[in-house]
Amino acid sequence: MLKTLAQRYFADLETQMRAVVALAPAAPEFDVLLKYPLGWVDQGGHPYDHPTGKRIRPLVLLLCCEAAGGNWRDALPAAAAVELLHNFTLLHDDIQDDSPLRHGRPTVWKIWGRANAINAGDALFTLSYCALHQLEQTTPTATVLAIWRVFNQTMLDLTRGQHLDMRFEHQPSVTVDEYISMIGGKTAALLAACAQIGALVGSDDAARSQHFADFGMNLGIAFQIHDDILGIWGDPKVTGKSAATDILAKKKSLPVLYGLERNQALNEVYRRPRFRKIDVELAITLLEESGAREYAVQLENDYYHRALQSLESAQLQGEPGHQLRSLAAWLFQRAY
Amino acid sequence: MLKTLAQRYFADLETQMRAVVALAPAAPEFDVLLKYPLGWVDQGGHPYDHPTGKRIRPLVLLLCCEAAGGNWRDALPAAAAVELLHNFTLLHDDIQDDSPLRHGRPTVWKIWGRANAINAGDALFTLSYCALHQLEQTTPTATVLAIWRVFNQTMLDLTRGQHLDMRFEHQPSVTVDEYISMIGGKTAALLAACAQIGALVGSDDAARSQHFADFGMNLGIAFQIHDDILGIWGDPKVTGKSAATDILAKKKSLPVLYGLERNQALNEVYRRPRFRKIDVELAITLLEESGAREYAVQLENDYYHRALQSLESAQLQGEPGHQLRSLAAWLFQRAY
Repeated sequence: MLKTLAQRYFADLETQMRAVVALAPAAPEFDVLLKYPLGWVDQGGHPYDHPTGKRIRPLVLLLCCEAAGGNWRDALPAAAAVELLHNFTLLHDDIQDDSPLRHGRPTVWKIWGRANAINAGDALFTLSYCALHQLEQTTPTATVLAIWRVFNQTMLDLTRGQHLDMRFEHQPSVTVDEYISMIGGKTAALLAACAQIGALVGSDDAARSQHFADFGMNLGIAFQIHDDILGIWGDPKVTGKSAATDILAKKKSLPVLYGLERNQALNEVYRRPRFRKIDVELAITLLEESGAREYAVQLENDYYHRALQSLESAQLQGEPGHQLRSLAAWLFQRAY
Repeated sequence: MLKTLAQRYFADLETQMRAVVALAPAAPEFDVLLKYPLGWVDQGGHPYDHPTGKRIRPLVLLLCCEAAGGNWRDALPAAAAVELLHNFTLLHDDIQDDSPLRHGRPTVWKIWGRANAINAGDALFTLSYCALHQLEQTTPTATVLAIWRVFNQTMLDLTRGQHLDMRFEHQPSVTVDEYISMIGGKTAALLAACAQIGALVGSDDAARSQHFADFGMNLGIAFQIHDDILGIWGDPKVTGKSAATDILAKKKSLPVLYGLERNQALNEVYRRPRFRKIDVELAITLLEESGAREYAVQLENDYYHRALQSLESAQLQGEPGHQLRSLAAWLFQRAY
């Protein structure tokens, strides 16, 4: 599924992104800090060419453009913009989380220091706006302004989500509702924007584009809950991570928050300063007893079906419409 | 001079900025981190109302709009945008420089930590784009897109300048030309954008707006050189700083770079690990001997006169045209 779409889009997407990054003014090593996180150069500035990440956001954007009846090539500037924006958020995230690795390589701040990494992020952020501006070459001006507004609002929601996420770390208790609101900003808002912006380029019908936005938002939340389940009950052979990573890291993911709201014994376990293997096993047992797993699976299902309902209202067109439904199903069916 | 203009513009500018910041989505304490650096609240979120800084950039923008024949109220969204952008750059600057104080108050990172400060900066940056977007209410769409392009390009130049500035700290030698290129990005690019964007709202004449941009760029460089001179030879009673601050901090400002290029003894002094009072005095003597002061004053004059020449080409209109010339003269005549 992904492969068909990747073959259709990715060469042109990569060309578009490279043309945008080439707009950055010349200064020694400046371009290296911008190209490195995109996987185009190594830290010495030599060609590397292993584009980072799955480019899932531009893919959704381009497919939604087609499914709304448009020509995906018209949406390439916006697709480049969301991928650059996503990479900018990862760059600043890695500083905020003190993460030393990303896509198996040292993070920008780890190599060049925090001050340079902040600046490289700011430059990538600006380049995402440069990319979006190029929509003027393919799209009516009024639509470009409408899309720019969506882009701004999305970025505000991302910073709100990030703010909440950092706040939750120090907050004694977090409700499930607060958590859903946080991932709505941090994870789902950008996917919602991708679907909506694709649809706006494809058909410039504001009401219809809102159905696409709802699709992206609900799918994004379902996707994050799915990840939360995998972080506890995922099969290490499938996820590629060690078992119950999120429990060991005491991550306040959805099942954990649900369990903490209902199970006193689980609260006591979580107050222990550090987790041993036996604590992890106990925590998982208590989580299962509290019904956290069923709850999370049910909630994921709910959001996924809301996403599908939004697609029904969006009047998808032709083969790309089928592909969009298949993509949603594929994203949802990743094995537990 | 400033007072007349401030009385004309500042109440409406403040209203415009507050309306934009109110677009930030609700989350506990999120708005406090955005309003604090603007001087609207204290760190507890209570009203404070001492707007930070002189708002010199929006003032130049609004006056250039009028001097180009426009109505300054039409340019208010852009004026709010450049002031928000400026404050965003200060916020990230303070993290990058480890500065504990700004406008006499603890910096955002000092109060809320680096991770939150990075995010607050990202949100302010986004809000500057939200402000700019509101130009669609006052300005023809094609002009809005032209202004958005200038804004993007300016922000790229700011990140280039910041990149060079951080790089110079570790670079064994920096030439005067490299330095001028750095301050062109870090200091002057935003002033150039203010003048150009004001002119574009005021008359939408691309060629003429370029003269305004040249005015802002040259004035910005002259302004920075002036500051560099004050940092060494400024009268503490006038500058409010202690004498020769920049020498004590071993700051590689323009006169110092000029002196280091020409005076061997000065190079030896600058290799000493720390400066005592006697080293500062010796450095100043050597700087004067090398002709660094005359050179800097001459270069400042050159850029200032280029700025005035650009104004001549810009066909200024009416009373605001006179006021813009007076403002330039006033900025230049700050006492040494």
